[in-house]
Amino acid sequence: MPIEFVSPMQDHDCSDSVGEQVLGTQPNAIFRDEAASKINNLRTQILLGKSDLIIALFGENKYRQWNTAMDANTAIALNKPLIIIPPEALHHPLKELSPKANVTVETIDQAIKVLSYIFDTNA
Amino acid sequence: MPIEFVSPMQDHDCSDSVGEQVLGTQPNAIFRDEAASKINNLRTQILLGKSDLIIALFGENKYRQWNTAMDANTAIALNKPLIIIPPEALHHPLKELSPKANVTVETIDQAIKVLSYIFDTNA
Amino acid sequence: MPIEFVSPMQDHDCSDSVGEQVLGTQPNAIFRDEAASKINNLRTQILLGKSDLIIALFGENKYRQWNTAMDANTAIALNKPLIIIPPEALHHPLKELSPKANVTVETIDQAIKVLSYIFDTNA
Amino acid sequence: MPIEFVSPMQDHDCSDSVGEQVLGTQPNAIFRDEAASKINNLRTQILLGKSDLIIALFGENKYRQWNTAMDANTAIALNKPLIIIPPEALHHPLKELSPKANVTVETIDQAIKVLSYIFDTNA
Amino acid sequence: MPIEFVSPMQDHDCSDSVGEQVLGTQPNAIFRDEAASKINNLRTQILLGKSDLIIALFGENKYRQWNTAMDANTAIALNKPLIIIPPEALHHPLKELSPKANVTVETIDQAIKVLSYIFDTNA
Amino acid sequence: MPIEFVSPMQDHDCSDSVGEQVLGTQPNAIFRDEAASKINNLRTQILLGKSDLIIALFGENKYRQWNTAMDANTAIALNKPLIIIPPEALHHPLKELSPKANVTVETIDQAIKVLSYIFDTNA
Amino acid sequence: MPIEFVSPMQDHDCSDSVGEQVLGTQPNAIFRDEAASKINNLRTQILLGKSDLIIALFGENKYRQWNTAMDANTAIALNKPLIIIPPEALHHPLKELSPKANVTVETIDQAIKVLSYIFDTNA
Amino acid sequence: MPIEFVSPMQDHDCSDSVGEQVLGTQPNAIFRDEAASKINNLRTQILLGKSDLIIALFGENKYRQWNTAMDANTAIALNKPLIIIPPEALHHPLKELSPKANVTVETIDQAIKVLSYIFDTNA
Repeated sequence: MPIEFVSPMQDHDCSDSVGEQVLGTQPNAIFRDEAASKINNLRTQILLGKSDLIIALFGENKYRQWNTAMDANTAIALNKPLIIIPPEALHHPLKELSPKANVTVETIDQAIKVLSYIFDTNA
Repeated sequence: MPIEFVSPMQDHDCSDSVGEQVLGTQPNAIFRDEAASKINNLRTQILLGKSDLIIALFGENKYRQWNTAMDANTAIALNKPLIIIPPEALHHPLKELSPKANVTVETIDQAIKVLSYIFDTNA
Repeated sequence: MPIEFVSPMQDHDCSDSVGEQVLGTQPNAIFRDEAASKINNLRTQILLGKSDLIIALFGENKYRQWNTAMDANTAIALNKPLIIIPPEALHHPLKELSPKANVTVETIDQAIKVLSYIFDTNA
Repeated sequence: MPIEFVSPMQDHDCSDSVGEQVLGTQPNAIFRDEAASKINNLRTQILLGKSDLIIALFGENKYRQWNTAMDANTAIALNKPLIIIPPEALHHPLKELSPKANVTVETIDQAIKVLSYIFDTNA
Repeated sequence: MPIEFVSPMQDHDCSDSVGEQVLGTQPNAIFRDEAASKINNLRTQILLGKSDLIIALFGENKYRQWNTAMDANTAIALNKPLIIIPPEALHHPLKELSPKANVTVETIDQAIKVLSYIFDTNA
Repeated sequence: MPIEFVSPMQDHDCSDSVGEQVLGTQPNAIFRDEAASKINNLRTQILLGKSDLIIALFGENKYRQWNTAMDANTAIALNKPLIIIPPEALHHPLKELSPKANVTVETIDQAIKVLSYIFDTNA
Repeated sequence: MPIEFVSPMQDHDCSDSVGEQVLGTQPNAIFRDEAASKINNLRTQILLGKSDLIIALFGENKYRQWNTAMDANTAIALNKPLIIIPPEALHHPLKELSPKANVTVETIDQAIKVLSYIFDTNA
Repeated sequence: MPIEFVSPMQDHDCSDSVGEQVLGTQPNAIFRDEAASKINNLRTQILLGKSDLIIALFGENKYRQWNTAMDANTAIALNKPLIIIPPEALHHPLKELSPKANVTVETIDQAIKVLSYIFDTNA
């Protein structure tokens, strides 16, 4: 399939430190975070804006995963098609997001099957 | 002509079963339909969103063809040019759609002639 | 509740004859329909454009109800909230519309309950 | 100040049960949630769409508060002005939201002061 | 009917001289026209932007009536409903505008009948 | 310069007869015109929608040139850059269009110079 | 005339100190400015968003008046009608803004005359 | 990096004289400026409209740099990502622009680092 995948910065340390890598050491954790988050937002805005389909994969980890939820929500607001892959344990807190997504699947393999179906243009 | 044609899934069985093919067997016909329709909607939204011109071909069959009518209507709402090809017997129920379309023709051949005229850029 | 309800023209004869009532007798049924449908479209566009919420009620009658389906679809395209009330027998042909609607209910009374919930702003 | 405040449904039980209150008992928790969340989404979409300014108040509770984050994000996507009030402990997970908001304050009283400043049109 | 009618400046002399009335005598006819047209455009943009329905009345006079054609065209581009009233003699040069209008009528009385039909919300 | 020029159909006979060439002989001049104009509008909408810059060339002929004026106006409504080339004799009737255009020039050569300036990206 | 005038905060001290008035003393001038400017931006966004017409008055003072230029520019980007009142000495640096404005006048009195002309709906 | 940089016309003389180069000698400085600025605006509108990211570099010179401020502001209004590079001395007059930008950096090198981070899609 002629698909190119991009994603928010996945390297957590890189994402947290990019502000200081660009602007130099910041006075404290608040400013370190502010500098980093602005650059992460810029990066995500450009890549998401160029995407034809957004896939939001939630994990069962300890993190609140607000960025995943917000990027999924931005896809909806921009009328970009959205597939979400939530773990079963997060069903209840994600119940308002789920019906706004185009498709909710349970595994990455299922999301790949949906992608294949989109590109099946000879049927 | 440098035109690529795409369409909603034309294989009726494939369209009806795609939900179960992706998500596995569903509890009943309602959920089977819901799973399938969401994936069909996702596929149509992406392909229609990338199209420069929508051609809606209605048949004289027993089906209500709501998807054809609604996809045509989406083209109008998105300001995408629309050609409709209705059978004569459906003139009255389609009378509100017809004046919203850019062009109404009677046969596929006539639609092809319209396409040729668009690409006649040397005239 | 401070709600005002408007609707497409419900008087079928009035809807079909409005073109001739405005423009005079037309040469044949095709032109009679075209004249009427343009005025009906104008009326629906203005009223739907001013609405905060669209409720699409499908019946179990013989009609194809394309206008209901298309007006519901226009609500979706304009990001206007949409409640649909389909009869059980039309579940399958409406399966692509249903997940695009905000809420699908089975009776008018249920739709009224949803309206009440929206205006419950003191909770 | 001539301000009217509306909010998402604050009564947690009411929010969770509204689907069954409208549609009757659902087969299981998943469908109970789906029915409720669609109606909550409809209600929030209408009220948020009519608002001139969104204030997102995060708490220090155990909940993931994805709805608060997503409603805040919708405000940004719709170019509606946004004030967020995050607790200090949530600074890091909200660091990508904070620079997208118009104003970040620490208390409700501070948000009220901002509202007063907006309406100070005689200065 | 609770309708308010506004229009582009109908007083031809007033329309042509408003630039000099605001800015003082201009060096020549070109600048006199430029000063006037900018103020006329501002006035029309505000009034047309607040209108729910545009009615474009063409006359059988010697003028080219480009402003009428362009204001009608702006209504179309803004998705504002449009009724045009062309004289029979102008059918051919207006043939590309006519199918873009919602409704084409022959007399002002007919346009009034269409307005009445829109406000017939009890039918 | 890597520029591709397209235009509305310039062959007047071809433009007037395209409706009958597609749909067959029409009952009278009105329907002949309606059939042709819809196809011309479709063609222009697609080509204008894909253009980065619109150049509207007015002539000193007897025609009212409403299509030129309306296509120029559509460019403005779509925020597409617009250059107009009016003959001196049409200054007064085009006075409301002129200040809405980005640039008004007097000759085709001058328009070409403007194009060259846009592509001078090394300066 | 039934006009309500609002403006960005005109009290320079109040505008510069509002951040500290809401959030308390800030560590240094940079943060004092950042806190204030975000609240000023919020206030201007709401008021400008509700305005039907923007009037940008430039002064002959020492300030760079970037906010005036940017608010004028926002009006243009939002397709809101714009009148600018530049002092003669600022003609050259404002030459790119001037042709984007709807109307450029030299005095406040002239701007008032333009307003009167807009509301002259009986002519 | 597969990046193409374009910019407003950097050659100050070329920018100021382009109107006369296209249209011939103008009567005075005002018209010379008006002719030039319209062509500069057209050029900037096309190039900025095609850009994925805008970088606004302010200098410590005597100029008011309104065009830089306004082009930055247009990027914001069009939801195009924006990096600004202000000199320290201009912090205060640019304080309302800074929080609207995605990222504020101090040097061109830092802006390049941000660009590198965007294209780091393998992380």
